[in-house]
Amino acid sequence: MSHARHITLPKGFLAAGVACGIKPSGKKDLAVIAAEADCSVAFVTTSNQITGAPIQYVRRTWPGGCGKARGIVINAGVSNVCTGAAGLRDATTMAKLAARNLGAAGGKFLVASTGVIGRPLPMAKIRRGIAAACRALSARHDADALEAIMTTDTRPKSAVVMTTLDRKRVTVAGMVKGAGMIAPSLATMIGVITTDAAVPPATLHRAIKACVHDTFNAVTVDSDQSTSDIVAVFASGRAGNAPLRAGSRAYAKFTAALHEVCAELARAVAADGEGATRLIEVVVTGAKTPRDAEAAAKSVANSPLVKTAVHGADPNWGRIAMALGKSTAKISAETLTIHIAGQKVFTRGKGCPFNEKSLSRRLREPTVTIHCSLGAGKAAFTALTCDLSKDYITINADYTT
Amino acid sequence: MSHARHITLPKGFLAAGVACGIKPSGKKDLAVIAAEADCSVAFVTTSNQITGAPIQYVRRTWPGGCGKARGIVINAGVSNVCTGAAGLRDATTMAKLAARNLGAAGGKFLVASTGVIGRPLPMAKIRRGIAAACRALSARHDADALEAIMTTDTRPKSAVVMTTLDRKRVTVAGMVKGAGMIAPSLATMIGVITTDAAVPPATLHRAIKACVHDTFNAVTVDSDQSTSDIVAVFASGRAGNAPLRAGSRAYAKFTAALHEVCAELARAVAADGEGATRLIEVVVTGAKTPRDAEAAAKSVANSPLVKTAVHGADPNWGRIAMALGKSTAKISAETLTIHIAGQKVFTRGKGCPFNEKSLSRRLREPTVTIHCSLGAGKAAFTALTCDLSKDYITINADYTT
Repeated sequence: MSHARHITLPKGFLAAGVACGIKPSGKKDLAVIAAEADCSVAFVTTSNQITGAPIQYVRRTWPGGCGKARGIVINAGVSNVCTGAAGLRDATTMAKLAARNLGAAGGKFLVASTGVIGRPLPMAKIRRGIAAACRALSARHDADALEAIMTTDTRPKSAVVMTTLDRKRVTVAGMVKGAGMIAPSLATMIGVITTDAAVPPATLHRAIKACVHDTFNAVTVDSDQSTSDIVAVFASGRAGNAPLRAGSRAYAKFTAALHEVCAELARAVAADGEGATRLIEVVVTGAKTPRDAEAAAKSVANSPLVKTAVHGADPNWGRIAMALGKSTAKISAETLTIHIAGQKVFTRGKGCPFNEKSLSRRLREPTVTIHCSLGAGKAAFTALTCDLSKDYITINADYTT
Repeated sequence: MSHARHITLPKGFLAAGVACGIKPSGKKDLAVIAAEADCSVAFVTTSNQITGAPIQYVRRTWPGGCGKARGIVINAGVSNVCTGAAGLRDATTMAKLAARNLGAAGGKFLVASTGVIGRPLPMAKIRRGIAAACRALSARHDADALEAIMTTDTRPKSAVVMTTLDRKRVTVAGMVKGAGMIAPSLATMIGVITTDAAVPPATLHRAIKACVHDTFNAVTVDSDQSTSDIVAVFASGRAGNAPLRAGSRAYAKFTAALHEVCAELARAVAADGEGATRLIEVVVTGAKTPRDAEAAAKSVANSPLVKTAVHGADPNWGRIAMALGKSTAKISAETLTIHIAGQKVFTRGKGCPFNEKSLSRRLREPTVTIHCSLGAGKAAFTALTCDLSKDYITINADYTT
């Protein structure tokens, strides 16, 4: 991960990030990403029943999850969740201020906020911050925007993929904040993706919905689900390709590029989970149904005992078997095979002999793969998570006070 | 909790606990609890799809979950889970050895094991241990039995309740091990309850099934579910009451006493969860359905962010709202009210003003109550859990290696 350019690489996008005083540290805390003109937008949001004011605002403004917009304004430090009617007014004001500062008549902005739940936004600071960010908008300031949306993230997370559509070069780029994902007080995952492909809003919505299932929705840091998650994708159309039609070959190619960006960002979020020292990939194959595959993989990925075992570089396959067994997926010990870091540790109801010391060494590598073959069918799913360390407790045992 | 007598207080029961060398520490690791003659038994077991050999053995021997038995033999240190056909033979051997050492022609024993998954039982040690425990059986050795089944438990957990049936004094007593409940490598909750009431097996089964829902099944330490959980209740009939009929007034009175024992043991398990520094009661009221009440309470009780916040004495109600919102229960922020330690912190979509310092002090008390009133109906459920501390990570990051 570097501060190389990302979301302004697709033609037609500008970004800025400024410090307006919401974060007590004085770090950057307000970002604006804007297209040079109104463009297609599509987004997906949290399924938590308690939602922040920004989520409520974007859902009301684009009830179908897509439409036209100029950009997005994001603050970190306060999440504007559970703030009542005043919170919704503040979210609306943020969107309007961004539009007004850009002089964009009719250009609408999405809003996202991340930080503590239940506190009112410091609107005077935010007002000044939006004005400053809009003045600073540039294709070179995307690293500032990324820095401004970080909370407990230890590193910026971005991805860029190039492809061609109608022989035109198309760029898809994204940035994300995570860390305490799925952790509402740090509220939480905000992803912004830009592309210069020409994609009508409904088609863009279909594409992003197709991409999140096995990318962002496959990530779990702590099983807790944010009230503020949003992933929004903007398409400027500046690449010059013919507008994409859903189902076409070009659509498939674009969606593959979008998927690659989502997948890379999702892996980065899991690897940078709060307190994480390594990324865990839980690969489930041989499940009876796709739903079973996902349930089994997520049950292992959410198990604190599996996550602490990986943290301790302990090849404790019993906990993996337990986590599979407690899931809603159909599991039989007799047909189950488990590999940890490529080493077979369990098959046909029993553990296999293996060298504990050498496997423990492999569990200290940055990425640990747990492969569970259920032997019940052909469905597969890969969940992404991280180990569970004492730093997770430190980060989360004293957040608001 | 003291080493006062408990499971041998009901007439007709003997117990013993010995060290036979399974635990590397040399601590007691094998217990036998035996009735003086065959008696009624009923049990409930884990719902994990992966089960240990002892669970498979008792389910096969008493397919209806109840019948006649002489007692139970329990070892700690190795859980005999995922050990294949040899494991099932070992469990069977343990039961037979206990019966043979007692000279109990036809008297059957239940078996339970707790400890690491996937290792074979050291049968030579266990053979000697069962012989020694059977020789030591006495009404005065129940504390030894309780000590022998502990793993990461920090204290013994027992309960005694007296009642009268047909003007006869009846005692119901129980002991339990938990700690890494629901934690399979420490595999896990084993509860033994004895009573001198006369209760036919099927009636006893009905009574214990009625008691576990809001006691043992309301406890969660870490959301992980053991492959070895069992709660077994033995009724010697020595109190001299007329055998209980399900549905009678005496049955209701007996079940109330049994429930009280289960509830006390369940609270003790939650309070002594791995790394726990305090007990958390999550009380949900005003739910639309009983299922909603349970789902909402367990979602809060299982949330690592709620548990770390309580550990940090941080009145972070946003995380409680998040955990409710992600549950399968119907939740609306507008009708939701949250109290922490008796202090109203959230109502009608917004936080309430409160003194953070004074509430933080109350969050340091041994028991913390979180009350969530959903405003959607009349159903209620209370889940029991503990805070999540760094010691949980220490205990679980290096268990097998």
